[in-house]
Amino acid sequence: MKNVLQENVEIILPENGLEQKFKQAEEENRKLIIKLGFDPTAPDLHLGHAVVLKKLKQFQDLGHQIIIVVGSFTARIGDPTGKNKARKPLSIEDVQHNAETYINQLSKVIDVNKTKIVFNSEWLDALSFSEVIQLMSKVTVAQLMHRNDFNKRFTENTPIAMHELVYPILQGFDSVKIACDIEMGGTDQLFNCTMGRQLQEVHQMSPQIVMCMPLLKGLDGKEKMSKSLNNIIGLTDEPNEMFGKTMSIPDSLIDEFIDLTTDFQNEEKKNLKQRIKNGENPMNIKKLIAKNIITQYHDGESAEKAEQFFVNQFQNKIFEEKSFEPVSIDLLHLNQQTTTLLELCHRLKKDESKTFMRKLIESGGIQINNIKKNNPNEEIELVPETKIKIGKRSFFELI
Amino acid sequence: MKNVLQENVEIILPENGLEQKFKQAEEENRKLIIKLGFDPTAPDLHLGHAVVLKKLKQFQDLGHQIIIVVGSFTARIGDPTGKNKARKPLSIEDVQHNAETYINQLSKVIDVNKTKIVFNSEWLDALSFSEVIQLMSKVTVAQLMHRNDFNKRFTENTPIAMHELVYPILQGFDSVKIACDIEMGGTDQLFNCTMGRQLQEVHQMSPQIVMCMPLLKGLDGKEKMSKSLNNIIGLTDEPNEMFGKTMSIPDSLIDEFIDLTTDFQNEEKKNLKQRIKNGENPMNIKKLIAKNIITQYHDGESAEKAEQFFVNQFQNKIFEEKSFEPVSIDLLHLNQQTTTLLELCHRLKKDESKTFMRKLIESGGIQINNIKKNNPNEEIELVPETKIKIGKRSFFELI
Repeated sequence: MKNVLQENVEIILPENGLEQKFKQAEEENRKLIIKLGFDPTAPDLHLGHAVVLKKLKQFQDLGHQIIIVVGSFTARIGDPTGKNKARKPLSIEDVQHNAETYINQLSKVIDVNKTKIVFNSEWLDALSFSEVIQLMSKVTVAQLMHRNDFNKRFTENTPIAMHELVYPILQGFDSVKIACDIEMGGTDQLFNCTMGRQLQEVHQMSPQIVMCMPLLKGLDGKEKMSKSLNNIIGLTDEPNEMFGKTMSIPDSLIDEFIDLTTDFQNEEKKNLKQRIKNGENPMNIKKLIAKNIITQYHDGESAEKAEQFFVNQFQNKIFEEKSFEPVSIDLLHLNQQTTTLLELCHRLKKDESKTFMRKLIESGGIQINNIKKNNPNEEIELVPETKIKIGKRSFFELI
Repeated sequence: MKNVLQENVEIILPENGLEQKFKQAEEENRKLIIKLGFDPTAPDLHLGHAVVLKKLKQFQDLGHQIIIVVGSFTARIGDPTGKNKARKPLSIEDVQHNAETYINQLSKVIDVNKTKIVFNSEWLDALSFSEVIQLMSKVTVAQLMHRNDFNKRFTENTPIAMHELVYPILQGFDSVKIACDIEMGGTDQLFNCTMGRQLQEVHQMSPQIVMCMPLLKGLDGKEKMSKSLNNIIGLTDEPNEMFGKTMSIPDSLIDEFIDLTTDFQNEEKKNLKQRIKNGENPMNIKKLIAKNIITQYHDGESAEKAEQFFVNQFQNKIFEEKSFEPVSIDLLHLNQQTTTLLELCHRLKKDESKTFMRKLIESGGIQINNIKKNNPNEEIELVPETKIKIGKRSFFELI
C-alpha cells in the first residue's frame, strides 16, 4: 500500500517520513491531514495539476483527510507593486467564485464531499502586526534567499519586493493552522513546503512531510505544462480537443504521459512502453493514451467518439498519402491570424536555419494545401486544417 | 543662520535640501517638523547623544517643531528570537517609564515643553497585516541588503531574522505618519533615515531631509561612545565623574571633544586647538573642556568644584613627582575585582608584548603604590587610586 503511495513521487522529505506519519496516525487513532494549497487567481486545472490530485485521491481512498487551503489572503491583496497585471486584487466574491470553479474541477479527480476547503484569510486577516513580526523572526533572510528563484533574481539584480519574501512564511503558517501532516505539491513547491516544517517545529508540532510530484511537461515537450505557456490539456477540455492535443505531443513525451496522465495498470504501462521500443508506430500508443485520458475526465463513449472524429477528420483524409503531423496553432506561438510563409515554415522546422528555409521556399520545396508557394514573404492564414508540406518528407496539418 | 545649522553636520541628504525645506516652510507659513527617533530600551543619554540633541536645539531656537518618536512598537515586541537578552519585551508601563526618564534627560539640552513626544505603536499597532504587506511591497530586498550591517552579516553568513529587515521600513513609515521634514540622527542612522524619504515619496509627500551628525568617540578614543562599551560620559554623571572621565580621554580625542561636546564660541575653539599645536600641556585644555561640559549639564560652580576636587585628589598628590595618567577601571574591561599583575600591566600598555611585560616585571621594573612587584601572577585588587608605575616613564592611576 505504501509502495503505491510512493509511486511517481519525485521528492519525499524526510525520506522515511511517510512511514512515521502513518505510525503516528495509527497510534493516535486519527486520519492524516493532507494539505494542498490553491491560488484562487487561476482556477483552470490541467493534466499537470492532476498528477498531484491523483496522489491526493490515493490518500483519500485510504480514508485520510484532504484539506484544500485557498490562498484567499494574498489573492485579495493582489500584486501590491502593480507590476503584475495578472495579479489584480480579487474581491471576496471573486475568490469565492474562483474557489467554486476550482472545486467543480477538483471533482473530476477527488471526492470533494470528503474534502475540506478552508480559506487562509480566516487566520491571516486576524494576525496583528506584532504577531507577524513574531512569525517573521523565526525565519532568516538567508534561508529565504536559498529559494531558487529568489537567489537567481538577487544575483541578477532583478528587484524582489520585500513582501514576496513573506509569502512562503505565510504558506508555512497555513500548515501550522491546519495541523498538516503531509503537504503535497509539484517539485516547484519544495521550498515553500519546507517552510511549513520549520514553522511547525517552532510551534512545537511534529513537522509535516513534504511530498513533491514531478512537473508534467506541456504539449511542446519542453516546458512544464502551464496555462501561460499555452501548452496545456485542460481537465475541462472537450473530448475532441483532448484527443487532438494528445496526438500532438512529441514522441519523446509518450513515456512521461503513460506514467503521469493515464490510469493504466502498471503491467499495461510497461507493455505500452515496450511496444514503442519494439518499433510500433507511436501514433497507436498516443491514441490509447488519449482515449484513457478522455475516459478519466469524460467517459469511455466520449473517448471512442473522439477517436473516430480524429480518424475521420485527419487520418483518413490525409494519412492515406502521408502521415501529416498535427500541430496546434497555439503551439506555434505566433499570436496572430496570419504570418509569412518563411516564419511559418521556420516555426514548424526549428532545427533548420532561416536561410536554408528561404532557399527551400524559393526553389519550390514548399506546398500549402497542395499548392506550391515560392514567395517567402507571402502572408499565410493560420486556420485549422491547413496542410503544409516542407521538402520531401515533412507534412504538417494545423489543428 | 543656515551656516550655523550645517556646522558639525557630517551628512545632509540631499545636499541642497535644507535650503529648499526652509523655503517651502516659509511659503507655506509653517514650522519645520524635525524628527528624532528614540529607542525606549536604553534611556541613558551620554555626550554622543548630545551631539544630535544640540543640533535639534538650534532648530528649536529658530522656532521649529521637534518631534521625538518613541519606538514603543518594537520595544514592546523585544527580540522575538530571544537571542538578544538585552531586548526583552517591555510592558506599556516600562516604555512609559523609560520615556519619562529620557524626557527628563532631554531637558538638559532641549526645551521639552516645546517638544512633541509621540509613540509609534499608536499607528503601527493599528496596521492590518494586509497594510503591512502593502508597505513592504514598496521596498526591495536588495535595497535593504545595502545597509552596511545587513550586507556584512549576509556575506559572512551571520543569520539575519526576517523581521529585522522590516524595522527600517517601520522607521520610514514613522516619517510618513508625522509628515517629517528633517530626520536627525547619527551617521549610523543614514540608511534607516533614507527609508523615510522613499516611503514619503510613495505616499506622495515631499521627502524628508536626512541630517546625520558624526558619532562621538568614547573614552577609549577608538570606538563610538556607547553604553555597552563602557566608554561613556553620561549626561547625568556627577560633576566629579564627568571631570575625571574627561581628563582620561586620549590626547588624540581633544579636537573632537572641543568641536562636539563644548559650547565654546568658534574663535575660542580655534584658539584652544592652536594652544595644543603650540605645545601646551594637553591637560590644561582637557580641564577647560571638562569645566565647559560640567557647566552645560550642571552649572559653573559645580565645574569649579570638580576641578578643585580633581586637583586635590590626584594632581597635587601625584603629579608633584610625575604626571600620573588617570585610567578608568571600567576601561580596562576586566569585569572582575582582581587581576594578575601581568594582565593589568598588559592592559595599560597594549603596545608592548606580554613576553616583554613579563620580563619587565621579573626584572623589577614595576611598582604598585610605590612598592616593587616582581611576580607576574600576583593578584592585584582593582580599586580606585591604585598607582602603577611601569618602567621609567609610564605612570597610571586607577579611577
